[in-house]
Amino acid sequence: MKALVYHGPGKRSWEEKPKPTILKPTDAVVRVERTTICGTDLHILKGDVPEVTDGRILGHEGLGVVEEVGSAVSNFKKGDRVLISCITSDGKCDACKRGMYSHCADGGWILGHLIDGTQAEYVRIPHADNSLYAVPKGVDEDALVMLSDILPTGFEVGVLNGKVKPGDTVAIVGSGPIGLAALITAQLFSPAALIMVDLDDNRLEAAMKLGATSAVNSGDGKAAEKVKALTGGAGVDVAIEAVGIPATFDLCQEMVAAGGHVANVGVHGKSVLLKLEKLWAHNVTITTGLVDTYTTPMLLKSVTSNRIQPRKLITHEFKLGELMKAYDTFGDAAKEKALKVIIRRE
Amino acid sequence: MKALVYHGPGKRSWEEKPKPTILKPTDAVVRVERTTICGTDLHILKGDVPEVTDGRILGHEGLGVVEEVGSAVSNFKKGDRVLISCITSDGKCDACKRGMYSHCADGGWILGHLIDGTQAEYVRIPHADNSLYAVPKGVDEDALVMLSDILPTGFEVGVLNGKVKPGDTVAIVGSGPIGLAALITAQLFSPAALIMVDLDDNRLEAAMKLGATSAVNSGDGKAAEKVKALTGGAGVDVAIEAVGIPATFDLCQEMVAAGGHVANVGVHGKSVLLKLEKLWAHNVTITTGLVDTYTTPMLLKSVTSNRIQPRKLITHEFKLGELMKAYDTFGDAAKEKALKVIIRRE
Amino acid sequence: MKALVYHGPGKRSWEEKPKPTILKPTDAVVRVERTTICGTDLHILKGDVPEVTDGRILGHEGLGVVEEVGSAVSNFKKGDRVLISCITSDGKCDACKRGMYSHCADGGWILGHLIDGTQAEYVRIPHADNSLYAVPKGVDEDALVMLSDILPTGFEVGVLNGKVKPGDTVAIVGSGPIGLAALITAQLFSPAALIMVDLDDNRLEAAMKLGATSAVNSGDGKAAEKVKALTGGAGVDVAIEAVGIPATFDLCQEMVAAGGHVANVGVHGKSVLLKLEKLWAHNVTITTGLVDTYTTPMLLKSVTSNRIQPRKLITHEFKLGELMKAYDTFGDAAKEKALKVIIRRE
Amino acid sequence: MKALVYHGPGKRSWEEKPKPTILKPTDAVVRVERTTICGTDLHILKGDVPEVTDGRILGHEGLGVVEEVGSAVSNFKKGDRVLISCITSDGKCDACKRGMYSHCADGGWILGHLIDGTQAEYVRIPHADNSLYAVPKGVDEDALVMLSDILPTGFEVGVLNGKVKPGDTVAIVGSGPIGLAALITAQLFSPAALIMVDLDDNRLEAAMKLGATSAVNSGDGKAAEKVKALTGGAGVDVAIEAVGIPATFDLCQEMVAAGGHVANVGVHGKSVLLKLEKLWAHNVTITTGLVDTYTTPMLLKSVTSNRIQPRKLITHEFKLGELMKAYDTFGDAAKEKALKVIIRRE
Repeated sequence: MKALVYHGPGKRSWEEKPKPTILKPTDAVVRVERTTICGTDLHILKGDVPEVTDGRILGHEGLGVVEEVGSAVSNFKKGDRVLISCITSDGKCDACKRGMYSHCADGGWILGHLIDGTQAEYVRIPHADNSLYAVPKGVDEDALVMLSDILPTGFEVGVLNGKVKPGDTVAIVGSGPIGLAALITAQLFSPAALIMVDLDDNRLEAAMKLGATSAVNSGDGKAAEKVKALTGGAGVDVAIEAVGIPATFDLCQEMVAAGGHVANVGVHGKSVLLKLEKLWAHNVTITTGLVDTYTTPMLLKSVTSNRIQPRKLITHEFKLGELMKAYDTFGDAAKEKALKVIIRRE
Repeated sequence: MKALVYHGPGKRSWEEKPKPTILKPTDAVVRVERTTICGTDLHILKGDVPEVTDGRILGHEGLGVVEEVGSAVSNFKKGDRVLISCITSDGKCDACKRGMYSHCADGGWILGHLIDGTQAEYVRIPHADNSLYAVPKGVDEDALVMLSDILPTGFEVGVLNGKVKPGDTVAIVGSGPIGLAALITAQLFSPAALIMVDLDDNRLEAAMKLGATSAVNSGDGKAAEKVKALTGGAGVDVAIEAVGIPATFDLCQEMVAAGGHVANVGVHGKSVLLKLEKLWAHNVTITTGLVDTYTTPMLLKSVTSNRIQPRKLITHEFKLGELMKAYDTFGDAAKEKALKVIIRRE
Repeated sequence: MKALVYHGPGKRSWEEKPKPTILKPTDAVVRVERTTICGTDLHILKGDVPEVTDGRILGHEGLGVVEEVGSAVSNFKKGDRVLISCITSDGKCDACKRGMYSHCADGGWILGHLIDGTQAEYVRIPHADNSLYAVPKGVDEDALVMLSDILPTGFEVGVLNGKVKPGDTVAIVGSGPIGLAALITAQLFSPAALIMVDLDDNRLEAAMKLGATSAVNSGDGKAAEKVKALTGGAGVDVAIEAVGIPATFDLCQEMVAAGGHVANVGVHGKSVLLKLEKLWAHNVTITTGLVDTYTTPMLLKSVTSNRIQPRKLITHEFKLGELMKAYDTFGDAAKEKALKVIIRRE
Repeated sequence: MKALVYHGPGKRSWEEKPKPTILKPTDAVVRVERTTICGTDLHILKGDVPEVTDGRILGHEGLGVVEEVGSAVSNFKKGDRVLISCITSDGKCDACKRGMYSHCADGGWILGHLIDGTQAEYVRIPHADNSLYAVPKGVDEDALVMLSDILPTGFEVGVLNGKVKPGDTVAIVGSGPIGLAALITAQLFSPAALIMVDLDDNRLEAAMKLGATSAVNSGDGKAAEKVKALTGGAGVDVAIEAVGIPATFDLCQEMVAAGGHVANVGVHGKSVLLKLEKLWAHNVTITTGLVDTYTTPMLLKSVTSNRIQPRKLITHEFKLGELMKAYDTFGDAAKEKALKVIIRRE
C-alpha cells in the first residue's frame, strides 16, 4: 500500500509500505477513507519529536472502513465505518479506568508516533473496541475527521478544563485550528463573550465567522489590556492558551479575573514564569492536559444533531495520492489561509 | 396608588391602596414599570394558597425604578432601574449562605404571598440589596420581566437540577410558560434532542418555534412510548416535570433512561407513586426544588448577550390600568393562546 | 469440584460440579480461597429472583488465586491473588465507558445469578481484566472479601450518591450488613452525626461499635420524630435507605432536611408513595442505584491504609466444606447475631 | 482600652487606644476574650505589608462577647459569644454572592490590616451578620480561635482546592501552622497517605503526632525523590504548598502525579518557574487562593463533633496583657518550638 513516511528531520515521502495485519486479538485493520494533517505532524517533521523514528508512517486522525478484526474485538466487524481516535485506549489499565486515556499504559498517543499512523491506505488500530467509534448514518464524514483530535482537544483541554459556563467571558489566545476548535465547542455552553486573540488578521476573521464575539490582534503587545477593557476591567472568567509559548501563557495569566480559570492547551517546549506574587491571592485555577477523547461520543451526538459544524474548519481538499501536496499547503498555512485540510481516498 | 387586590377565592379588584413606605433600613420602595401574571396567581385566586389573605396585593414579578431606599441599602439608590426577584433573600441566614434563597429565614417567596406584591404602582422590597438586580443599559425590559421568576425557575429547578449537558436527550413534560422557560434555557447547554410533551397542540407548536426538536401530544396515553421511540428505546437522559400532577410525574419516571435525571418543577398537591421496584436498580436521580434565583446574574448576561430571547414567551400586552383584563386573558390561556402577558405602566 | 448449588425455591445442596474452564479469551478461572453469603443469596433461595435457574452455583463475592487466563487477559496471570468483584465489566460498552459497570452490556451482576458463582472451589470470571483486582501484599484477606459487594454498595449507592460531606448529619435506616457498610464508609467523609435506625437492638449495638453517634429503635413508629429531634428539628442532610420496603423509604423522606439527599440502597419489590405535595418545594435529591464497583481501587487503598476496617463486619467463620451450615447460620441472622460470615477454603 | 499597635517596621507596643464604637448600622463591637498571632502579623512587623500604617491595631483572629450591635444587625445581640472571622463579608456584593468572600467589595481581609484588629480589648467588626459566628455551647473556645483563620485557610485553599479524596496520597510541603492546619483538615477526607515535608525535624515530629503517615526532611535537596519513592514512583495525587517560596512550589510540581493537583496556600513574593514543558501533557491542576471562610460553619460542626481537634496546634498560652511577650515567643518559633499561641483576656 501507499503511505506518507517520515525519514528524519525535513524528509517525508509518499511510498510503498506493507499493508498492516492483525498482531493482537484486540487489533483491527482499517481501510482509510479520510485523513488530515495536524500541527503536530509538522513538529515531527521539524525533528521536534525525537521518539518518531525513520520509516514511521505519520498521521493520527482519520475515518475508514473496518477491513479485519482480531478475535477479541466485539464492538466492530468487517465493513463497519469507523472514526479513528488519535488516542489508543486499552480500557483496563488504571489510567483508563479513571478516564485518563491519554495516559493509557498500553496506548495514549501512539498512532503516527510510536506505531504507524493513518496517512496511508490502511492502518492497524490496537485496542480497537476502545479506540474506534461507529460512524452514525448520514453524517458528513469530512466533518467527523475533525473529531479524531482537534475537537476533543479544544473541548476537553480548553473548554471543559476551563469550566466554561453560560454567561462567562472567555478569551482564547491562538486562533489556529486548535483555538478555533475550542471556539466552536465553547459555544456548546453559551458563554456571553468569546474573545479571540491572535497575530494574524486572517485567522481572526475566520474566528469571527465561527462565532467569536470580539477579535483582538496581539501584535501591538497590548492584548491583555484590550481584553480587560472588553470585560469592564475585570478580566475574563476563562483564558484558554492555544499556542504553546511563554508569551501567550503570560497573556492568559494577565487577563484572567479573580476566581477564573487558565486552561493550557498549547504544547510547550520551555518553562514559563508563573506570577504567584500576584496570583496567590487571586483564586485562580490553571490546568494542563493531553486530550483523553472521553467526550468523543458526546461530540458525535453534537455533530449529528447539528449543534456544532466542524466542517467549517476545512479550507482545503485533497486526494489521498496528493498527500505530499497537502503537506506543502498545510505547512504554509498563513500564506495559503489554511486551517484544516481534508484528504479523501478518492 | 392603584393595585390588584385579592379578596378571597374568586375575588380580585383594581383599587386604591396606600403607597408603601420604608419599614426597615434594608428596604427599598420601587415604582413598578412592568409586571406580569404567573400561574401561581391563578392558584391563589382559586383559594389554593390559604396563606394569602383578604386584602393582599398580588404579584411577584416585575421591573421598576427605585423610589426610596433604607439607610442600610448600599447596592441601589433612587432612580436606579431594577429587576425585582420573586425571591427575597436576606443574604445572611444559613439558607442564604448555602445559596438556598428560597428557604431564606426572613424571605423566600413572600411577595404577593405573605406581603404585598408587584401588581401595583409601587412595591416595597425587603432586603433590597440581595433581592433586586440592576437593569443593564439598552436591554429589552419586557424580556427581563421573564427573569423575575419563570426563567430562573425553569433553568435552576429544571435544567440545572436535571444536569442537562451537551449531547443529552431531554424531554420536558408540560409546554406551559414554565416548561417553555426550561426549553429556552436548556439550549444554553446544547442538548442533542429537546422533546416537548403536552396535551395542547398550540403549545407544542409554540415549543417547536422556541427550539424543541420534537413534539409529542400525550393525549393518546402513549407519550412515554413515543418519547422512548425517539431515543432508540433507551429513554431520555433528563426528564423535566413541568405540570404538577401524578400522571405527568409518572410519564417522567417511565421515560427516563438508566443513569438519567428526573427534575420536578411542577407544584404538586398530591403524592405520586414512585416505582422503586423498577427504579431501584436504574441509577436515577430525582430532584425537587423551589427557585432560588441564584442564577439571575448569569441569566441577565445571557439575555444581554442575546444567547436567550425570553421575549418570545410574551403573547399579550396590557397597560397597568388594564390588569383586570390581563387576568381575564391569562386566565383563559388555552382559548386566548396566551403564554406570558406583559403589563406596562404606560 | 464441590459447589453450593441452587435447585429451586428453598433447595440448595453442596455437590460435585465440573470445574470451570476458559470459554473466551477474556476469561479467567479462579481458585476460590474465601467467599461469603449475601442477603441476595437468601432472596434467590426464597425464589424471589426467577432468572436464577435450577442447577446454578450461587455466590458473587470472594477472593482467590488465578488458576488460568484466556489469551486476551493481560492484567493477571496464573498464581496472582485476586479480589473478585460482584460486578462483571467488559470495559468497552457505552455503560462501562460512563463508569456504570452495573449496566454493562455483557456483564453487570451475573455471578451466581446468570452464570455460575463463587460459592465453589473454582469460578470462571468473564472479562477478567476489568472484573478482578490484585490483592495487595500483607492485607487481611478476610476483610477484603467485604469489598466484593457490600462495601462498594454501601459506599457508592449510599454514601457517594447521598453526597455525605464533613459536618453533615446522616441517618442510615437499616442496620444490616449493607447499612453497616454505609456506616463504615460514611466515616471516610467525617460527618458530624451518624444516626442508625433499626428494629433490632443487637444490630443497633453493633452499629454503635462501628462508629454510629446515635441509635434509634424504630419499633415505636416514632423514628422520624426522634431523628429530627437529634438534629434540632431540621432533619438530616442525608438519609440512606438500606432496607427496601415502603415504610423505611417513607421514614427517609420524613426525616430529610430541605436541601438534603435521600439515597436508596434497598432492593424494593413494591412502589412507594413519594410525598411530592411536601417535597416539591423542599429542594431534595433522591437517588437509586446498583453498585458499579468503580470505587473498588479506592476502597482497597482505604483498607490497606487502615482508614476502614471491614473485618469488623465478620461475626462467624466457616470452612468451604461447611457452606451448608454457614447458610443455616446466616439465614437465621437475628437469632445468631450474624452480620457477615467468612468462608475459607482451609 | 489596651491594644497591640504597629508603629512601622520592627516597632510594636502595648498601649492605650480609644475603645471602638459602632460606625455603621451593620457593625458590631466585640469584647475580645481570646486572640492569637498569625505569621502574617510577623510579616507586617517586618514591613512586608505596606498597606498597614503606623498606629494600626494588629490581629485578625479571635473570639469574644458582643458588646453592642448596629441597627441593621439581626443575627447577634449584646452578650452573644462569637467567633471572629479573619474575613469580613458584606454578603451582598458580586464576590460574596459567588462565595468568594475574600474578594468582598467592602470587606475581605481588612482586620488588623486596613482597619483596627483583634489584638485589643475590644474590636469593631463591620458587616457583623456575615463576619461573626455563634459559638456553640460547651465547646473548647481556645480550639475555636484556630477557626478564625488557619483552619479554614488550610482546608479551603489546601484541602478543598486540592480536591483531597479518600484513598489519595497527599504531600504537604511546609509543616508550620498553616501546613499543619491542612494536615488536620485533610483527614476529614481520609486520604491513604499524608506525607509532610519540612526542614525542621521538630515540626515534622509535631506533624506525625497530628496524623501524618510519613515525614520527609527536605534539607538534603532530595524531597521530591523521597516523596515519589513513598508513592511507588507515581507521585502524589495532591501536593499542598504551604511555605510561599519558589523552591517549595518547585517541589510540588516535581512530586505531583499525572492527573494530580497542586494547591498553593503559601504567600509568594516572587514569580516561580512553571515547568510547562513537562506539565503540559500531565493533566495537572494548579490552584491559588485567599481563604473565603465559607467553610467556617462546617468546621464549627467538625470541632463540636470532635472530628478535628485544632487545640493540638496550641503550644503556648498567654494573658492579653502579655501580648508583647507572646510576640517574642511566636517570633522565635523554631527555638521556642511554637506552633500557635493562645492569648486569653484573663
